[in-house]
Amino acid sequence: MCDFSEISNELVNFRNERDWAKFHNPKDLALAINIEAGELLELFLWKGADEANQAKVKEELADVFCYAFLMAEKYGFDIKQIMTDKIKLNAEKYPVEKSKGTSKKYNEL
Amino acid sequence: MCDFSEISNELVNFRNERDWAKFHNPKDLALAINIEAGELLELFLWKGADEANQAKVKEELADVFCYAFLMAEKYGFDIKQIMTDKIKLNAEKYPVEKSKGTSKKYNEL
Amino acid sequence: MCDFSEISNELVNFRNERDWAKFHNPKDLALAINIEAGELLELFLWKGADEANQAKVKEELADVFCYAFLMAEKYGFDIKQIMTDKIKLNAEKYPVEKSKGTSKKYNEL
Amino acid sequence: MCDFSEISNELVNFRNERDWAKFHNPKDLALAINIEAGELLELFLWKGADEANQAKVKEELADVFCYAFLMAEKYGFDIKQIMTDKIKLNAEKYPVEKSKGTSKKYNEL
Repeated sequence: MCDFSEISNELVNFRNERDWAKFHNPKDLALAINIEAGELLELFLWKGADEANQAKVKEELADVFCYAFLMAEKYGFDIKQIMTDKIKLNAEKYPVEKSKGTSKKYNEL
Repeated sequence: MCDFSEISNELVNFRNERDWAKFHNPKDLALAINIEAGELLELFLWKGADEANQAKVKEELADVFCYAFLMAEKYGFDIKQIMTDKIKLNAEKYPVEKSKGTSKKYNEL
Repeated sequence: MCDFSEISNELVNFRNERDWAKFHNPKDLALAINIEAGELLELFLWKGADEANQAKVKEELADVFCYAFLMAEKYGFDIKQIMTDKIKLNAEKYPVEKSKGTSKKYNEL
Repeated sequence: MCDFSEISNELVNFRNERDWAKFHNPKDLALAINIEAGELLELFLWKGADEANQAKVKEELADVFCYAFLMAEKYGFDIKQIMTDKIKLNAEKYPVEKSKGTSKKYNEL
């Protein structure tokens, strides 16, 4: 058994011990991901690009991961697979020769 | 080599081939996570809890994961470790006997 | 003098008394709007559509408005004007006869 | 009649002509505010603090305002009142003598 399923199992145990599956519908998990992403963002507010408190970044980024894992589990997604698929799609949208060194969106390339 | 580092390497290769590391400071990665989280949320707007388009959820959730991985890589975080640490913290904030079956926040338990 | 400029002046005074204009660049104001929007969203997490605490909604929604006003002020936008312009644009994207009673996005109509 | 109620009436007419009130529950309006805030944020991604496209900022900021107005209308909030109330609260959390020139959060002052 490998990383993704290990952590996913840990999260599912945590959730089930608390009988929280009934709250964890996909829509509310999407809200949770956004809320945690907002808390992560707050660590950078009014600050330079590298000035966030690293210990807090660890915690808030971990929260984003936790809810993202729980959503993947809810849908039965294979995280590695959906990421690999998306990287492939992005490689088509952003061919190296066109996108190298520029931060433009694919529809502006 | 296990899941997390495999995917992380794939993402780093993708980024480096395009010379994008220079854009990927922690603050902008936090923005990117929020933007992708917002696109994921949009799939649920005006809809019931389970009515989002699954194929699109796959893509938007994968985007959240990709930028979360890239932020972890930027800081040199061990994703498995920060998640395990956070689950432990949450277990203290939400002891089973107090939090079972309720969606209250820890400061309202 | 009317509502928008009155409130805007109040906010600008509040900001200037604290010498905060130097932090309030457009990018960080966009972060602030997102962070406050996330706090507003949290009041609805794991809850039915009407179950948020109204007193807290008032506060978080007010925060969203405050930073949105400060961003408008930063750019010198006339809030009434940009809203009226956007309503006109949306009326073209969502003609009554096509969009009546449906929550579909304009590109799916 | 003043700015806030004029614009609010315009938005309510727009919504009612399309029979959209049934979709506009407070929770989904909170989602909409977050989604639009995310689109506003995207205009600043990988960019300097002042490098966003102003014409697009106008549109996305207007979208944030529109949904914020619609949420206020849904609850029957007086926008001017909730903003004035919040500014007063913030003035207590951030007294001038403590907060002048610093971007620290109130709990770190």
